[in-house]
Amino acid sequence: MKQTHEIKIARLKEAFKASSQEYRQACYQLFGWRVDRTKEGRYKLSSQYAESPDDFLFFHVGEEGVDMLETDFSANLGSLIEQYLQKQRSVPMFLNAVQSDLFSQQTVTNVMI
Amino acid sequence: MKQTHEIKIARLKEAFKASSQEYRQACYQLFGWRVDRTKEGRYKLSSQYAESPDDFLFFHVGEEGVDMLETDFSANLGSLIEQYLQKQRSVPMFLNAVQSDLFSQQTVTNVMI
Repeated sequence: MKQTHEIKIARLKEAFKASSQEYRQACYQLFGWRVDRTKEGRYKLSSQYAESPDDFLFFHVGEEGVDMLETDFSANLGSLIEQYLQKQRSVPMFLNAVQSDLFSQQTVTNVMI
Repeated sequence: MKQTHEIKIARLKEAFKASSQEYRQACYQLFGWRVDRTKEGRYKLSSQYAESPDDFLFFHVGEEGVDMLETDFSANLGSLIEQYLQKQRSVPMFLNAVQSDLFSQQTVTNVMI
């Protein structure tokens, strides 16, 4: 009886793991961003178009909204931060702009190779 | 003993539910898209900038890649589909373009009001 319960719990954990993996993978393929929750409310975003795995962003997502935390990569995004986060106040539009820039750079690099 | 196990299972389910809700909510706030898994491999995307809840997109995400399924909303996106899905072959760049269009339309509407 005890074993049955343990098996049930193990299966439940497996099912949950598979289902969250599927959702994360879908987000990655749809948006081109890998979204890793590093701790409560904190998310690391890495673009599928980034040149280097060091080019990631960090966000704190809370009830009062979304804040970007500084990373080496974000330190070079001053004009996009000003235009999209400060003026337009839109995190989605900011991420769009970052992604579009990375995509164009990659396309240019590929053409040059 | 049986009750303890049932409580454990119930708590586990609660914890899973809360954790996936948090992740979905973070994706919504970061990307501006609500992503609902409707059945295996099938995802419904609704933009936070859409004028109507009927303006949604459907995608099939599988191991061989991502396909967009036609909806009433996608039927009006012919030029973006051609440019981003067919020529550039990038779902993220397609969703960026759709989102940017919806955002500009919303901004224009707000300015007009």
